[in-house]
Amino acid sequence: MTRQELINQIKQKKSFLCIGLDVDLDKIPPHLLKLEDPIFEFNKQIIDATHHLAVAYKPNIAFYEAYGIQGWRALQKTIAYLNKNYPEIFTIADAKRGDIGNTSTRYAKAFFEDLNFDSLTVAPYMGSDSVEPFLAFEDKFTILLALTSNKGGLDFQGLPSDALKVYEHVLKTALTWKNSKNLMFVVGATKAAYFKSIRKIVPHHFLLVPGIGAQGGNLQDVCKYGLTDEIGLLINSSRGIIYASNGADFAQKATESALELQQEMSQYF
Amino acid sequence: MTRQELINQIKQKKSFLCIGLDVDLDKIPPHLLKLEDPIFEFNKQIIDATHHLAVAYKPNIAFYEAYGIQGWRALQKTIAYLNKNYPEIFTIADAKRGDIGNTSTRYAKAFFEDLNFDSLTVAPYMGSDSVEPFLAFEDKFTILLALTSNKGGLDFQGLPSDALKVYEHVLKTALTWKNSKNLMFVVGATKAAYFKSIRKIVPHHFLLVPGIGAQGGNLQDVCKYGLTDEIGLLINSSRGIIYASNGADFAQKATESALELQQEMSQYF
Repeated sequence: MTRQELINQIKQKKSFLCIGLDVDLDKIPPHLLKLEDPIFEFNKQIIDATHHLAVAYKPNIAFYEAYGIQGWRALQKTIAYLNKNYPEIFTIADAKRGDIGNTSTRYAKAFFEDLNFDSLTVAPYMGSDSVEPFLAFEDKFTILLALTSNKGGLDFQGLPSDALKVYEHVLKTALTWKNSKNLMFVVGATKAAYFKSIRKIVPHHFLLVPGIGAQGGNLQDVCKYGLTDEIGLLINSSRGIIYASNGADFAQKATESALELQQEMSQYF
Repeated sequence: MTRQELINQIKQKKSFLCIGLDVDLDKIPPHLLKLEDPIFEFNKQIIDATHHLAVAYKPNIAFYEAYGIQGWRALQKTIAYLNKNYPEIFTIADAKRGDIGNTSTRYAKAFFEDLNFDSLTVAPYMGSDSVEPFLAFEDKFTILLALTSNKGGLDFQGLPSDALKVYEHVLKTALTWKNSKNLMFVVGATKAAYFKSIRKIVPHHFLLVPGIGAQGGNLQDVCKYGLTDEIGLLINSSRGIIYASNGADFAQKATESALELQQEMSQYF
């Protein structure tokens, strides 16, 4: 998918909502557990119920790996279902990978080619040659962790170095890498106060923003400093939508929760 | 496995060799490709041929994920084979994971419980609460990336912050985390000059050292500053051993390459 196709979708839906598919068999409606592939069935129903309100879906790969082969099969079926039925949707493998060059190439092939995700989250700790193998893929996006939403996010990302913080060095340095136009950055909604200075470094790149809802982040604050004239944000919500109910009405309740966020977002168009 | 059991094995074998099982179907002997599970068959023969010379095996998970379900099945069979036949061997899932707390817990369960690895490599970028879920597992080891062997390793790890570099902050801060006795650290062999100062911060913890061989690191230099009175090192070699030959004699050539390293190591006992 190209950047322009993503922007077109955002404008058409008046939404920049990303839904996190973090499926936990202990939390999904019990009646699904009788089915052959409860994880995929859950995802399918959530996607069918929300695809008109969301522009992106983001399975966190940990939740699939935790179920071994059963989980990988459900992941394969989920991404194939999205690509076949909703090709306009932007897909994010939230995997936070990163390794030496020949190994990063392996991860890139797994997620970009075999599974055919549009994008992958990547950890920057190992530096340029751990990220560039991902950037080498045309029309695929590498979403680099910059400032994360969790409590310990500032432990190392927030260390001062010269006049900048480490996460600011990550942003600045990443812009010098080959194909840096294929970058997006993770910035947590819980760090809304930092968006203003982050936008000075990356005024045009898309930011993937987790941390709305369960983690305490606030949509209004993020939009105030994070929005660009092409929107430039993908705001993720996982638990607040997919676990809005764990009864037979879970898909309907997911629609309602997604609609509430989409309506709030529509004010910014 | 306990730290003492690992040390006992090291002393008994006069070896601190870790063998990286980074299986690439384009590089293994072609005659194996006819078999039902060539990846597992390759690993099994490498393990059988080298287990008396090595104390640890380290599959890099990227190489398995690249083959999807086939890869996961081969990984499951490989770790089960090791745990059943060579329970004294220390096993490392080289996955470089790290995410917010509830997600890191998922990865920990996948690798420590379901697959039953002894240890997992973890990236520190997201800070304390992204690593502590791994440390919570008793008799399992979290191997934190500190200073990696690749060219870009110093891009962010080497940034100065106050009187230290970022990787030194990682080492120092990690020691303050709960169960920090369950930590080991990745320090690349290509950075041998740094071992002296690293040992001042972490005098007793085991260091996992990749980068010998194909990446240009040197065993002698690493031992000079990295060894402790309990050895305290696990030196990894992957390609130099497992791809010593891609003919019918690959297992025998792997034995010879491993023996060469083990004999060099035996001088330090």
